Amino acid sequence: MNFIILSEEDAIGDGRYRLTDHRAEHIRSILKLGYEDHVLVGLVDGPHGKAFIQKIDDDEVILECEQLWLEGHPIPEVTLICALPRPQILKRVLYVSAMMGVRALHLVRANRVEKSFFESRMLEPENYRPHLLEGLAQGKLTRLPQIEVHDRFRVFFEDTWPKLEQAGSSNIVKVLANPETTSTLHDLCTRPYDRIAIAVGPEGGWVPFEVELIEKAGFRSCSLGRWTLRVEFAVTAVLSQLELVRVDGRGE
Amino acid sequence: MNFIILSEEDAIGDGRYRLTDHRAEHIRSILKLGYEDHVLVGLVDGPHGKAFIQKIDDDEVILECEQLWLEGHPIPEVTLICALPRPQILKRVLYVSAMMGVRALHLVRANRVEKSFFESRMLEPENYRPHLLEGLAQGKLTRLPQIEVHDRFRVFFEDTWPKLEQAGSSNIVKVLANPETTSTLHDLCTRPYDRIAIAVGPEGGWVPFEVELIEKAGFRSCSLGRWTLRVEFAVTAVLSQLELVRVDGRGE
Repeated sequence: MNFIILSEEDAIGDGRYRLTDHRAEHIRSILKLGYEDHVLVGLVDGPHGKAFIQKIDDDEVILECEQLWLEGHPIPEVTLICALPRPQILKRVLYVSAMMGVRALHLVRANRVEKSFFESRMLEPENYRPHLLEGLAQGKLTRLPQIEVHDRFRVFFEDTWPKLEQAGSSNIVKVLANPETTSTLHDLCTRPYDRIAIAVGPEGGWVPFEVELIEKAGFRSCSLGRWTLRVEFAVTAVLSQLELVRVDGRGE
Repeated sequence: MNFIILSEEDAIGDGRYRLTDHRAEHIRSILKLGYEDHVLVGLVDGPHGKAFIQKIDDDEVILECEQLWLEGHPIPEVTLICALPRPQILKRVLYVSAMMGVRALHLVRANRVEKSFFESRMLEPENYRPHLLEGLAQGKLTRLPQIEVHDRFRVFFEDTWPKLEQAGSSNIVKVLANPETTSTLHDLCTRPYDRIAIAVGPEGGWVPFEVELIEKAGFRSCSLGRWTLRVEFAVTAVLSQLELVRVDGRGE
């Protein structure tokens, strides 16, 4: 993967960045690059770029940016609402969200979410950030998803979400991933949209009153197919299907 | 997740199965079940079933099957051909393959596949089987994907694959996941099919002569969308998109 994510913490001035971690190892051992070779880079929440290797040894790699350019942000803009998964799986959801250009990830309480998950250290930015950065590097993207945690289900869907919805484009499609229905995305995406909101439930699913409340907030139930997918794969599935629907003209 | 995968190794006779591992813990701590409660079960490469808890304590859980039934196998039948990923990622590809009902997974050599990956202990059945079983449990399926390793790329596509193809239905669509093209699955899936073969490349992609050879074997290049997805997510993406294409009638 010829794409390195760079943070301000790596900057040493004059457009140069110093790497000593797994990224340096990746450049040495996987990409097998050397002095003056080029890598594609992305500055977190910043431009994409091209850098050359100014110094490389077993201790460090120093990159110097030669060119920087801004790449557009994905349309449609994606907001993901996930019942908070257990920490091991949360890492993967963060990774997939960053990799697939999700704009905002809202982690919410649900009946079938263990209370203890809200005390997980994985909810601390210094702990989850590396998983987001890994996802950006894989996806060759630079914009970090906004991460918000909501420990009250009803407040989120009755109060928080409507305000978030009002704040953006009204050309929005709101999907509730629901294996109990026969509707597909084709049934939901009947007019052009530039925003998507997707609600994905916990292991074991949303309970009936939760489905009711989410549908009352305007989300429409939709099946992703005949499988039972773990949450990070459900997210990939729905975004992939939405891409196909969009490309065939219904989303534009 | 109320679905427990049972193997012959767990059988203690009379339709009873004894669990002492993470599955017992799952029943106790996540499902929070007790004596005489029911669980849904699946026998590896066998029927689905319903069992009740005949004994449960901190050491073991004994299940007794009450009902067994056969569930149909997914149509279309999916064959996945993946350039062998590194061991950490291979685990995830195995998991996704089992979770999504892949019939056969062929792990192949490619230019950008490190030779050392073929020596990985993850290629030994006793090491990869647990990841397949985890995937089956998540997916609520019972049929293990067949796993085959091919350490010669050209021999696979020129010799092995044509024989595999001949051995099954000719209503097959053959997809080469290729970010370098603008074709989508809609362009590929123009007539009914009951078999799918998907070729997914290594990190860094197939090299040009590999793309040529795979296309010569009848695979058609297709983009999954605007993302760069790690292999286990690329597999989910293409299967999800195929499901949507199938459901809208083109695949039937």
